Amino acid sequence: MKLDINLTMTYKTKRINHSMRLLAPMIQRPRGTRDFAPAEMHRRRQVEGAMREACERAGFGEVLTPTFEHSELFTLRSGQAVIDEMYVFRDKGDREMALRPEITASVIRFYVNELSNMPKPLKLYYVGNCFRYENPQSGRYREFFQLGAELIGSKNPETDAEAIALAVNCIRAAGLETFAVRIGHIGILKSLVKQEIKEDDVAAEVLRMIDKEDFDALGDMFDAKALPRKLFDKITAIAETRGGMDVLDNLDKSEATAYLKEVFETLKLYGIDDCSVDLGIVRGLDYYTGMVFEIDAPKLGAEKQIMGGGSYTLSELFGGEPVFSTGFAIGIDRVMLALEAEKKPTEYMPLDAYVVPTDDDMRKYAFGLVSRLRSQGVRADVDLMRRNLSKNLKYASSVGARYAVIVGKEEMSKRSVTLRDMKTGEQKLVLADEVSTVILSAGR
Amino acid sequence: MKLDINLTMTYKTKRINHSMRLLAPMIQRPRGTRDFAPAEMHRRRQVEGAMREACERAGFGEVLTPTFEHSELFTLRSGQAVIDEMYVFRDKGDREMALRPEITASVIRFYVNELSNMPKPLKLYYVGNCFRYENPQSGRYREFFQLGAELIGSKNPETDAEAIALAVNCIRAAGLETFAVRIGHIGILKSLVKQEIKEDDVAAEVLRMIDKEDFDALGDMFDAKALPRKLFDKITAIAETRGGMDVLDNLDKSEATAYLKEVFETLKLYGIDDCSVDLGIVRGLDYYTGMVFEIDAPKLGAEKQIMGGGSYTLSELFGGEPVFSTGFAIGIDRVMLALEAEKKPTEYMPLDAYVVPTDDDMRKYAFGLVSRLRSQGVRADVDLMRRNLSKNLKYASSVGARYAVIVGKEEMSKRSVTLRDMKTGEQKLVLADEVSTVILSAGR
Repeated sequence: MKLDINLTMTYKTKRINHSMRLLAPMIQRPRGTRDFAPAEMHRRRQVEGAMREACERAGFGEVLTPTFEHSELFTLRSGQAVIDEMYVFRDKGDREMALRPEITASVIRFYVNELSNMPKPLKLYYVGNCFRYENPQSGRYREFFQLGAELIGSKNPETDAEAIALAVNCIRAAGLETFAVRIGHIGILKSLVKQEIKEDDVAAEVLRMIDKEDFDALGDMFDAKALPRKLFDKITAIAETRGGMDVLDNLDKSEATAYLKEVFETLKLYGIDDCSVDLGIVRGLDYYTGMVFEIDAPKLGAEKQIMGGGSYTLSELFGGEPVFSTGFAIGIDRVMLALEAEKKPTEYMPLDAYVVPTDDDMRKYAFGLVSRLRSQGVRADVDLMRRNLSKNLKYASSVGARYAVIVGKEEMSKRSVTLRDMKTGEQKLVLADEVSTVILSAGR
Repeated sequence: MKLDINLTMTYKTKRINHSMRLLAPMIQRPRGTRDFAPAEMHRRRQVEGAMREACERAGFGEVLTPTFEHSELFTLRSGQAVIDEMYVFRDKGDREMALRPEITASVIRFYVNELSNMPKPLKLYYVGNCFRYENPQSGRYREFFQLGAELIGSKNPETDAEAIALAVNCIRAAGLETFAVRIGHIGILKSLVKQEIKEDDVAAEVLRMIDKEDFDALGDMFDAKALPRKLFDKITAIAETRGGMDVLDNLDKSEATAYLKEVFETLKLYGIDDCSVDLGIVRGLDYYTGMVFEIDAPKLGAEKQIMGGGSYTLSELFGGEPVFSTGFAIGIDRVMLALEAEKKPTEYMPLDAYVVPTDDDMRKYAFGLVSRLRSQGVRADVDLMRRNLSKNLKYASSVGARYAVIVGKEEMSKRSVTLRDMKTGEQKLVLADEVSTVILSAGR
């Protein structure tokens, strides 16, 4: 016998003794995407809310752009790796669209279309989902979430420091304790390579290998093309420059090193003094223009980068006046993984009160009570299944209710209810009018 | 001379007197989609937050599902109109995917896949974007936003009343004052038609015309197929039944009318007593099973429906055990339009304090001050452009700052700053350590 089973689906049977009924094939979510249940979603909203608050406190205003865009918006600037992983489709009007692989391009398009007359600097942030057709693995999903910010219309060390400070404050607000901030300047290596290698395509290839940190291949290329070994040594020395601010003193003095120092000085004024220099960050060389920075959560292992950013110009590519910007994007999924690696999630008790009528007469009163509790700010629910007391208490416990509010005839004769602490099992009689005060003052 | 202009793009030139430079073609957002600037986004987040709070207070937990799904998830249940407007594409693994046209199907798929063992009733809500390839017009967008809830695992009047109450409380929480709740029961017309018309396809066609409220066509069909005129009259009488709860008494007594009455009674216990009966709501007849309800905002004109919902079974279609559910989805975009029609938006003042150093020596101090203010909960910003005082005050005013905090030598000698109310122009000297207290206690 040969079973023709569609491998993308799983079949399940239930009550097989009773009916031998074969259920319909179970539809699964697309590979590499996720569903989030309430407990996890609650944690994500807390983290997102804290980061959002950090943005608003720093004077950044939220923007929202479409989930898909004309695909050229991304192909115009992105590296081939991003383009290869893009979800591209034709809409019914035969226009080529792409699910956004990142959001910076959309924000700058929005700026060019409608916001270019706003006072500068223009400080924007966003929270949204992005899409890449990647091989699913820990920390890499086909739909993933970013919070990012763009500071548009100013180019100086203060601006760059402000963007870095916001990224750091977002990560701190999220509750992450162990993370490392690395700051570099793409101008140092870029100007050296472009100055010493006159052929543009060779220079671009050299920078690409530096970006990949593939110095073996870079060395082979220098040999093959008979490029000067001295330049190779200088490049690797710069790309390997890591450490405190003072490592900049070991390099030739340049505009870029002086600039970077000012960035570090301004960060100190913001109370951020544990960043390190990393001149090996090259980050999409066609795009970033000056300062670049990354944040890692060391506990995440290979996929440890949780944030990337830098200063760039992009608007002229989309039909606008050139304008300097500094921005970053935080990988929310990675931040969640890093938080998990750092500490145990707190208990999820989504309900303050579960109201239980002890008989049918009390049922009507219970609906009125739960309605009042909700309007007073209590997260409250009521038996909708006409269950008995013990089943109701079991339900209250299983959904994470802090209190059961038991409404019985005897209690009602005293205008009271029985308040049961679901963790300790303690019960006490409380005046019906005071239930919300008692529950809310106990704290969550 | 013939200009070859790509009509999907606009060209713009700037400083034409200086350079005659032609900028790159301006990339536009996809037709029918929107960008939201900070002031509008702020209002949307307030409304979304208030509705979210209403859900959490009623014991609903948030879930999030992927933006795209295997397209069969939607084609299995949706009407042809939805399928025709779906964004469908093949991913790089040649699987047919669809951008979700609605979110209920995804939530029930998630339930079937992973949540079916959770305690019942299971109360879930979501906020998310959906996609339909519609002709863009007021209140209809190709990417639109919904907040919805599903109450899974219980079928009785209390459950239906709870879902309606949540929808009403969400709309109230959003701040909308004028709206109308209409409640019907698909079982009344459905059972009548199915009982009197034995051919399934004819019965389905009759119900479809009722759904479209196309009674002329329905009459023609009755004539053409020689169906009994008496049945037509009965159908139209039922479908036109609208009014208070007592209109149910004019109908033949049935399980459905008794059920509806209980729903209305329970809503009264929740303090919701202004709903009306509307038996003309048929809402996707293949899908809903019993109670159905809609909310309109009359000020919106033709596109006045802001919410739709009802009780349904869907899980068995996706490979799960049959389970009764009641749910609804609120069109957030329509709610925003209705709020706009109702009242003036409040002033958007996103910044509490804009810190202005009066000279270069004060600049360093200003960065420390803004950092402290932010950590104390003040939404604060600082001059990043090294502007003079008057330009800084102009900027503070244009970005909607409540106060300018002027940091000068003379003030600093008194460990103070000048606090300028940007609305009234009033200035006063305030101790630097007390700036945040003064600003926060003034209220926003």
